[in-house]
Amino acid sequence: MSDAIKNEAPNLRRHEDGFAWQGVQRLAYKQDGDAPFHDVSRQTLFSRPDLAGELRYFEVGPGGHTTLERHGHVHGVVIVRGRGRCLVGSDVSEIGPLDLVTIPGWTWHQFKAAPDEPLGFLCLVDATRDRPALPTPEELATLRASPEIAAFLDG
Amino acid sequence: MSDAIKNEAPNLRRHEDGFAWQGVQRLAYKQDGDAPFHDVSRQTLFSRPDLAGELRYFEVGPGGHTTLERHGHVHGVVIVRGRGRCLVGSDVSEIGPLDLVTIPGWTWHQFKAAPDEPLGFLCLVDATRDRPALPTPEELATLRASPEIAAFLDG
Repeated sequence: MSDAIKNEAPNLRRHEDGFAWQGVQRLAYKQDGDAPFHDVSRQTLFSRPDLAGELRYFEVGPGGHTTLERHGHVHGVVIVRGRGRCLVGSDVSEIGPLDLVTIPGWTWHQFKAAPDEPLGFLCLVDATRDRPALPTPEELATLRASPEIAAFLDG
Repeated sequence: MSDAIKNEAPNLRRHEDGFAWQGVQRLAYKQDGDAPFHDVSRQTLFSRPDLAGELRYFEVGPGGHTTLERHGHVHGVVIVRGRGRCLVGSDVSEIGPLDLVTIPGWTWHQFKAAPDEPLGFLCLVDATRDRPALPTPEELATLRASPEIAAFLDG
């Protein structure tokens, strides 16, 4: 009876092995010339009409990376799995479990997983938000003028 | 140089041992006759004027519990530390790492840590929200009419 109740609780979604959850779909991003990224999946953990924010879980496979992009909306990121590096504005940082990363509006950002382990993170975002913009060739050249950022982008 | 850059990154707050973060204040709740809880701390991880949601980290000490309450706003909860049980509406569930719990509006809820370990969870909430209400004696009696809920409340 106790087990039955636990399994039926409509407001509980249990974690399964490997950062998967009951009733949560894992969406693999498709490689796309307009939005270059590599080996990234997304799972939406909380998204409801009566909630102004959303919480998603992103996972980047070993050696993979998210899209280098920026947008008006803010991200609040909690690393929950593995290690990697991130670019936020002009800052390149190593990141690991439970580190917090804020992406302010209109700030270039990218996450890269370590070569030998995945990088998983929770991402808080407004439900109502604008679409990301990719860097123009000129913007990319400006970013690359920093040797540290160029090393990050190529690394 | 690399270390200096890492430490100075203004948008990075590193996790420290024991679910603490650089620059994040740990607020201990005070015991209060109007809002009965026991051994609960709160840390606000993300709260900004340009973000419609907030993300907080709550930790309940071994054997402790949050306030039994309800309110119009929704909670999205991700367990990140330890084990315990929760009441959501009429459902009592055991909870552990990375389980997801949704608290819909106006739903009675309470979290209890296991006797021998803390229970830590992230809580997504709207920045603009109403104040919690505590059960009246009549509402408490209605809840206690369920033997399972009575056992949870007394346990």
